Amino acid sequence: MTSFRERMSQSAERHQSRVVLALDVWGPYGKRLAAARSVLEATRDRIAAVKVNHHLLLPLGLTGIKDIVGMCKREGLPLIADLKINDIESTNLNIVGSLLDFGFDALTANPFVGWREGLEKVMEEVHAKDGGVLLLVYMSHQGAEDGYGLGLGGGESMFRVFSQRAKDWGADGIVVSAKSAEKIREARRIVGEGCMIFSPGVGAQGGSPEEWYRTDADYMIVGRAVMDAQDPREAVISLAERREIG
Amino acid sequence: MTSFRERMSQSAERHQSRVVLALDVWGPYGKRLAAARSVLEATRDRIAAVKVNHHLLLPLGLTGIKDIVGMCKREGLPLIADLKINDIESTNLNIVGSLLDFGFDALTANPFVGWREGLEKVMEEVHAKDGGVLLLVYMSHQGAEDGYGLGLGGGESMFRVFSQRAKDWGADGIVVSAKSAEKIREARRIVGEGCMIFSPGVGAQGGSPEEWYRTDADYMIVGRAVMDAQDPREAVISLAERREIG
Repeated sequence: MTSFRERMSQSAERHQSRVVLALDVWGPYGKRLAAARSVLEATRDRIAAVKVNHHLLLPLGLTGIKDIVGMCKREGLPLIADLKINDIESTNLNIVGSLLDFGFDALTANPFVGWREGLEKVMEEVHAKDGGVLLLVYMSHQGAEDGYGLGLGGGESMFRVFSQRAKDWGADGIVVSAKSAEKIREARRIVGEGCMIFSPGVGAQGGSPEEWYRTDADYMIVGRAVMDAQDPREAVISLAERREIG
Repeated sequence: MTSFRERMSQSAERHQSRVVLALDVWGPYGKRLAAARSVLEATRDRIAAVKVNHHLLLPLGLTGIKDIVGMCKREGLPLIADLKINDIESTNLNIVGSLLDFGFDALTANPFVGWREGLEKVMEEVHAKDGGVLLLVYMSHQGAEDGYGLGLGGGESMFRVFSQRAKDWGADGIVVSAKSAEKIREARRIVGEGCMIFSPGVGAQGGSPEEWYRTDADYMIVGRAVMDAQDPREAVISLAERREIG
């Protein structure tokens, strides 16, 4: 199988899009699967990948969203589980096993949880199956400054330490808020070209697509700007066509 | 309804136990629910509460574990979702809504994610429904030193900052590794008596029950030492009876 990175770039190329659709559905639990299917059906040929989180997974579980996984497979869309894992090794490996068994391509993890008995074996296990691990490096909400933004003494910051961990630990990608071009630039300097940058925060959270396209981040994660749009397909296309795929 | 803290102490008193059973089941997805039911059935009158995490929730979802919730309700056992949430507010609130709707009493969160647009509204929402929020303050794996153990300059440490956040933010409890009596003591000094201390790490992770009972932590979280025991009931009773309930 090709690497997660290659699968991402093949999908982006084929669908002419760097938009990762966050399939975040609200509302009655019995209607969430249908709502997610409907947006995915409308947008599947103009997105690069799909990100699923607790909006779907918590009420329905992996067994309840097999349809979504199947739709992504048929369209060649990599599927990312955004669970922001930060548990001990045995639990993390249990999560990873379930995600890979059910056909997911990648997952997000918080590097705060550490390496030994934290993420070390997660990296091994996911990479052995050609999957991807995306590490959170700077999030898009105000409170991010209470964690990712903390200073560590000696002029060092959590954000830079996490970027360095992504490089040292062999992460496939990092997640950096679209709201700070400066942070994306700094993270890129640290992680180098071998690590993809995924950016949430455009749209409902206030980040500007135009500014994001001027950064060298790789993929834009978009949820509400598409999910809440009257015409999700049009919303995706308008975000995808701000600039040609490089 | 009584507060989460009162429900915990009533259950501990009635069941003569300060053991929180971590219902972490492995193995074939189709058999996990039955495995969890079986251990819960065998131990339900000698545990203080039940903690569920991705071992059950990720494959089955909340809709798939209604039986477990029902068993806990009938036995008066508070139910804690250990998802270690660390997301932006809209996602956190979606998670909280689902957990409360399906009958959970409390959830764990990582204070790293911060206050504004992080955990502020989570606290409000959970407390409005008499639920509990438990903040991670020091975990039980080696890599915990890469996060919880980090120094912040000026002699401050992440662990102490997180303990202070638990107090300032009105957390109902904190999670501190059973492997360090010193950390439990220090956390107690910071959070005071109004905040419960939950400790994982006894058993499979190497923590000693005898040493833990000499600390003033409130509840011991135990997974593998019970789940993997030939006789889970006997394992729970042996842990619960090391000392009388204070």
